[in-house]
Amino acid sequence: MDISKHLNSSELDSSDKQPLYMQIAILIADKIRRQILQPGTKLPPERELAELFAVSRTTAINAYRHLEQQGLVWTKVGSGTYVAQAREVESLSEVPWPQLFTAYPQNPITSILRDLVSTPAPGTISLAAGMPDPALYPMETFTELFNRNIGKTDPAHFGHIPTEGYTPLRKAIAVMLSEKGIPTSTENILTLTGSQQGLYLLSKVILEPGDYVVMEAPTFIGAIQVFQAAGARVLSLPYSEKLSLELLEDFLIRYRPKLLYMIPTYQNPTGRVLSEHDRQDLIKLAKRHRLVIVEDDPYSDLCYGEQPPQALKALDSYGGVVYLGTFSKILFPGLRTGYLVGPPILINRLALEKQFVDLHSNNIAQWLVTMFLNEGMLPQHLTTVRREYKKRRDTMAKALQRLCAHQIEFNLPQGGFFFWCKLKQAVTSQRLLQEAAKNRISFVPGEAFHTVPTHDKEFRLCFTTHNEAVLLESVQRLSKTLIQISKKTIDSDEQSCSIWPII
Amino acid sequence: MDISKHLNSSELDSSDKQPLYMQIAILIADKIRRQILQPGTKLPPERELAELFAVSRTTAINAYRHLEQQGLVWTKVGSGTYVAQAREVESLSEVPWPQLFTAYPQNPITSILRDLVSTPAPGTISLAAGMPDPALYPMETFTELFNRNIGKTDPAHFGHIPTEGYTPLRKAIAVMLSEKGIPTSTENILTLTGSQQGLYLLSKVILEPGDYVVMEAPTFIGAIQVFQAAGARVLSLPYSEKLSLELLEDFLIRYRPKLLYMIPTYQNPTGRVLSEHDRQDLIKLAKRHRLVIVEDDPYSDLCYGEQPPQALKALDSYGGVVYLGTFSKILFPGLRTGYLVGPPILINRLALEKQFVDLHSNNIAQWLVTMFLNEGMLPQHLTTVRREYKKRRDTMAKALQRLCAHQIEFNLPQGGFFFWCKLKQAVTSQRLLQEAAKNRISFVPGEAFHTVPTHDKEFRLCFTTHNEAVLLESVQRLSKTLIQISKKTIDSDEQSCSIWPII
Repeated sequence: MDISKHLNSSELDSSDKQPLYMQIAILIADKIRRQILQPGTKLPPERELAELFAVSRTTAINAYRHLEQQGLVWTKVGSGTYVAQAREVESLSEVPWPQLFTAYPQNPITSILRDLVSTPAPGTISLAAGMPDPALYPMETFTELFNRNIGKTDPAHFGHIPTEGYTPLRKAIAVMLSEKGIPTSTENILTLTGSQQGLYLLSKVILEPGDYVVMEAPTFIGAIQVFQAAGARVLSLPYSEKLSLELLEDFLIRYRPKLLYMIPTYQNPTGRVLSEHDRQDLIKLAKRHRLVIVEDDPYSDLCYGEQPPQALKALDSYGGVVYLGTFSKILFPGLRTGYLVGPPILINRLALEKQFVDLHSNNIAQWLVTMFLNEGMLPQHLTTVRREYKKRRDTMAKALQRLCAHQIEFNLPQGGFFFWCKLKQAVTSQRLLQEAAKNRISFVPGEAFHTVPTHDKEFRLCFTTHNEAVLLESVQRLSKTLIQISKKTIDSDEQSCSIWPII
Repeated sequence: MDISKHLNSSELDSSDKQPLYMQIAILIADKIRRQILQPGTKLPPERELAELFAVSRTTAINAYRHLEQQGLVWTKVGSGTYVAQAREVESLSEVPWPQLFTAYPQNPITSILRDLVSTPAPGTISLAAGMPDPALYPMETFTELFNRNIGKTDPAHFGHIPTEGYTPLRKAIAVMLSEKGIPTSTENILTLTGSQQGLYLLSKVILEPGDYVVMEAPTFIGAIQVFQAAGARVLSLPYSEKLSLELLEDFLIRYRPKLLYMIPTYQNPTGRVLSEHDRQDLIKLAKRHRLVIVEDDPYSDLCYGEQPPQALKALDSYGGVVYLGTFSKILFPGLRTGYLVGPPILINRLALEKQFVDLHSNNIAQWLVTMFLNEGMLPQHLTTVRREYKKRRDTMAKALQRLCAHQIEFNLPQGGFFFWCKLKQAVTSQRLLQEAAKNRISFVPGEAFHTVPTHDKEFRLCFTTHNEAVLLESVQRLSKTLIQISKKTIDSDEQSCSIWPII
């Protein structure tokens, strides 16, 4: 069914005193009640709804939110908005679920991500998610480790373990970090269900609504979401070649932020590496202000040229750097095994919180990673993936240079997962994404990495998930899209750029 | 070092206008600064500190809390309170961690649990934790499943998966529940990092500070903690032979609680089974009031006689029952795999929250459990563990009857993990626990299962973790303790019962 014919702006009354979002919601509710829109029907993404009614995206979001509160539609993560089932509508009349829920910190990023991860057309190449290539997961090694050790392991290791983590893994991580120049002992380590959980626990233990946090802009979406959900206000340090310590110091004095969140090495999404010199200056400033720095370091083992500078944590002379690591990017995400490094007093407080969340993380994964580390298998694996990802980066860089250099600028990342590109044309990366979808390619528009919705020209391409042949095909599709879009008139863009008053 | 000689009430000045907890804190702080108490020294548990100074437990707790806020001591979960390291004291002068932390919902239960799980004397038999026996974990079956299927599984299954869970597992659980009379489809299931996470997510999504929740008293500690941490006020439905629907209805009308939390089958800690008739009446009442019931059902597969009545969820005629299940008790806890059953609108809202917490649960465990279910291995395993646990229950019941029947009353549980016992003597179960520790046996005093600290006479014994020989030994030690305690004068009890004003 083409839904758009049931939903258009001609039915809106501009003289109506109701807010626009409410008018749209009433229109849709009416069609649901009259069963013109059947239960289960997928409604247009917010972006398209906004276009259909020639309203702002915010208005579209508010219309859906109002319908959801009434139980007439529901939003499925990663898929879209659907007309509620008759049965659901009926059961809602008994238990009014939406009214029971606490407020959800919905923000534009959430909607963008939801659109992004929603089932793409068959054959689409996604360069969106920051994922290692499943073909490189060391499953054979894990199978061999499992078999060789399961018989020797006391089954009690698979019962309940301390919330702080599986002790042999905490020890193994402490050894690994100490060798990297981060002096660590077991009591400094909390193992996590993915490093995302570290951000979550920190937000629960350190942030109160209204607190300030400083973040680079752009930065990792998951961190923005968690800190905003805790009610924190984000102070943005704009990305540039050099870190602006002057601006940071102004923030520190003016707002007394609770923490600074940073990815110093192969930053997500920009790939930027903070120089040795900047790291030292940053630590000096942070020490002076007793500033807590949350250093997120998922990529530093994936370097394709010279070694990056040492972690901030290795330079930490005042005990204020909290370090987050993960095995998701270097081994595989399904392990859900990350870790946090900090002083025992912090580890203890975080563990008290983690008890409520999941008692402790999965032991099978922790046991497997322990053996992988203790039997010295990580260096060999890293050599393999580095070599492969470097080839992919070079192949993709050449292709981008050859086919897209007229339309975009991009960097050559020295490590990590991403190309950070900038459009030279007068179009936004969101608009490019819409067109790209038709050519069956997807990526993340720059807007997703900012706390303020901006119609920017940047976007992120992940070069590690697919092999070289697929990457070449993806660049060809991107090039085709860039050429098409430069030929089109872009009136609609001008329109969607304007900010509509929310009345 | 015998610390008690450095800490005693003779040093307190009763004419001093400072609160008692502050006087004690200053005394200890002084000894730390003069290094009479060295860094790393373990301080007495709160209970002992209270005895040393002849003050209430609350005063002792407040003294330690004050010292912790000053960074002079720190509390390690499951271990105790320690004098902070010089290095920690120094680093605290740079980043004042304790001042950065949000308030922690510390309550008497937390301290009791901390004492409980703290490293017991060597040779202690613990009947405290509700744990299956590691000797019965089906590790061989899991190894076989792992080997037979790893080669056939696309490695992408170990990458990122939807937050709602590994789809094949959600399907398998839906089939399993439907066969049990709970009609369920995949979209009704959220897989969890242990069913504890279901309680946590529900508290985040449904509870605002000040909301009321109804809980049986006594009930599962983890649920009490999570709901109280969310700022909820607990209305207690006292345990008795029959559920008091009159009291429940009074609560519903008077307080409009957000939810009722229940373990209808083989309740923790009492072992009680809610009758078929009571279940139907409860559902009728809940439906009339559109009350959300959270049904926690970890034990119903572990029945040692006739089948228990159907789950409340199977009777749910108004869509208001949220069902929690887990594989921790029937397979093993380290899987950290539980699940929640509810309407899609709730699953969706919970998944939005879970994204922040850990993105998704561990895939290796979810993949293993899927195969275990799909290859029909659960019924055989349940037959094995039921037979073994039934034998243990019977052996222990006989021994308790023979050796302890003069001092305690107890039930014969029809399923689950626990004996719920009541002292006939004029002593509290907390006092019994202190004496029992000397005979190297431990259990959970009844106080831990209540929201209000009461000096009650009940306690819980877990009969599934140890084999019959160990259980027999444990009953002998318990019997010895009961005889010893009945001979002692119990003056100290009278004292510790009084409520001291917190001035």
